[in-house]
Amino acid sequence: MALEKVVLLVGGVGGAKLAYGLYHAMPPENLTVIVNTGDDFWLYGLRICPDVDTITYTLSNRVNKTTGWGVADETFITLETMPLLGETPWFRLGDKDLALHMIRTQYLHKGKNLSEITKHFADSLGIRCKIVPMANEFIETKVDTVEYGELDFQEYFVKYRWQPTLKSLRLAGIDQATLNPIIQDAIHQADMIIVGPSNPWLSINPILSIPGMRDLLRSTHIPRIALTPLIQGQAVKGPTAKIMQEMGLSPSNESVIDYYGDVINGFVYDERDHQPARSLETLFSLDTLMDTEAKRITVAQNLLSQINDRIKL
Amino acid sequence: MALEKVVLLVGGVGGAKLAYGLYHAMPPENLTVIVNTGDDFWLYGLRICPDVDTITYTLSNRVNKTTGWGVADETFITLETMPLLGETPWFRLGDKDLALHMIRTQYLHKGKNLSEITKHFADSLGIRCKIVPMANEFIETKVDTVEYGELDFQEYFVKYRWQPTLKSLRLAGIDQATLNPIIQDAIHQADMIIVGPSNPWLSINPILSIPGMRDLLRSTHIPRIALTPLIQGQAVKGPTAKIMQEMGLSPSNESVIDYYGDVINGFVYDERDHQPARSLETLFSLDTLMDTEAKRITVAQNLLSQINDRIKL
Repeated sequence: MALEKVVLLVGGVGGAKLAYGLYHAMPPENLTVIVNTGDDFWLYGLRICPDVDTITYTLSNRVNKTTGWGVADETFITLETMPLLGETPWFRLGDKDLALHMIRTQYLHKGKNLSEITKHFADSLGIRCKIVPMANEFIETKVDTVEYGELDFQEYFVKYRWQPTLKSLRLAGIDQATLNPIIQDAIHQADMIIVGPSNPWLSINPILSIPGMRDLLRSTHIPRIALTPLIQGQAVKGPTAKIMQEMGLSPSNESVIDYYGDVINGFVYDERDHQPARSLETLFSLDTLMDTEAKRITVAQNLLSQINDRIKL
Repeated sequence: MALEKVVLLVGGVGGAKLAYGLYHAMPPENLTVIVNTGDDFWLYGLRICPDVDTITYTLSNRVNKTTGWGVADETFITLETMPLLGETPWFRLGDKDLALHMIRTQYLHKGKNLSEITKHFADSLGIRCKIVPMANEFIETKVDTVEYGELDFQEYFVKYRWQPTLKSLRLAGIDQATLNPIIQDAIHQADMIIVGPSNPWLSINPILSIPGMRDLLRSTHIPRIALTPLIQGQAVKGPTAKIMQEMGLSPSNESVIDYYGDVINGFVYDERDHQPARSLETLFSLDTLMDTEAKRITVAQNLLSQINDRIKL
């Protein structure tokens, strides 16, 4: 019997590529995407969930395919009006995108939780898999930097374009977070867990840091397989390699495998790289580059069939 | 010596016409416009101040001249996106207008008060008179109606287009409001108070209901003159006559004068109407119709010169 039910752990742009591939490579009803919210923030009174929204826009085919985030054919009339009113915006919020943030904020103020709201948007947009934020509680990544001291995540990531030197990361509010029953159910019912090629430190670690999450994953007797975020020591996009160096780690698959520890029991490295010198139940290579929509589906298909073949053996 | 320093009390669209006229009929530095905030509300996480914004847009020449509120050449991309996300908006928020609400909300969350924020916008837009919200505290007009029970003001006014039958009005939060020192100073220094042709019950009463406001006005020994909101028993726009009837009042100048009581000592009625049968220090008529920008200035000029002439006598 094939391994049918898949839980995917992801951040934003990079993870969305694999989410898109899996969504089209398998029955989407069997897919649950658990999304980082450690980069959520409040701006102009609105709650912004960059990673959840990137996944939602990607799976509903509304995403801006050039950037990988935001809405296609977007306009920026509201933001362009701000300088007239003495405000210099630093975070790009498009007019179509704003609708999502405004409705979400209204629902939050009315007492709905983030997973209900995320489901409402996914249902409205006709998305057929589950998209679940890692927590309903508000958790903020704080980035301590050499140049500016501690920054809010989006200041670090967007305002300063991840150029400051990272000293350490802190997840404010994580101790109060609770494991969402929807996530617990999805993991209990899953036939495999896939950790997306997202930044392990910025995107995946917040998910794993929800109290009880690591134990829950480790308690399952199923493949728990991470897809490498690195190709030849580089991230396709974003600061993964840069922050690994700033943390004193070599930007290698071995460093990623060690970081995930026993949360994973399998790893997929890129075919351009050598086999990592680590012992894991499942370890194989693929062409992991997902630079077109077709290749995202191919990577997902190859990933699923290889895991199925190996587990049957 | 002419009466130079003017304090104007107004609501939104109707009052903005006289504010515009006065702004152009006198040195704007001598004008303070105290604006109703009893129709303020929160929507989509944003603080909306319809009357303050109408005054701000009008005096900065950004207003939509067809509607008398909102921004000229406005677009509605955010609102038009909402149905895709399962939301049916009922309050018109344009993309340019949203910038104002978002920046205001951010400042409120950061602890700035509404008069500081209003001043920031007026300064940014080059407005040379003072625009002061009636209170920094959040005060909500609640409208008890025959058909729907108690409604939030904007539900009554916009969602149901002021068609429900009004039973009574309530100003939630008014007891906690405090008289802004900026307003106290403006009234102490004023040479005359003008009550704009706004709805006395919906727009002017909230201002007068700030604890201490009526006493402060009555304590001044200056002209305190209301411009009629009625021409031949009708409001130029809006529900003034309708709600007077629902309250069992005849829609007459006498009813308005009686409602204001000793807060005013003068009244200007329209030249189409008979002289109200009330005894006031100052009582005269003008053509009060302000259906063009030129006529707004003319009405303001006539108002100022008539008051000056009469007070000199």
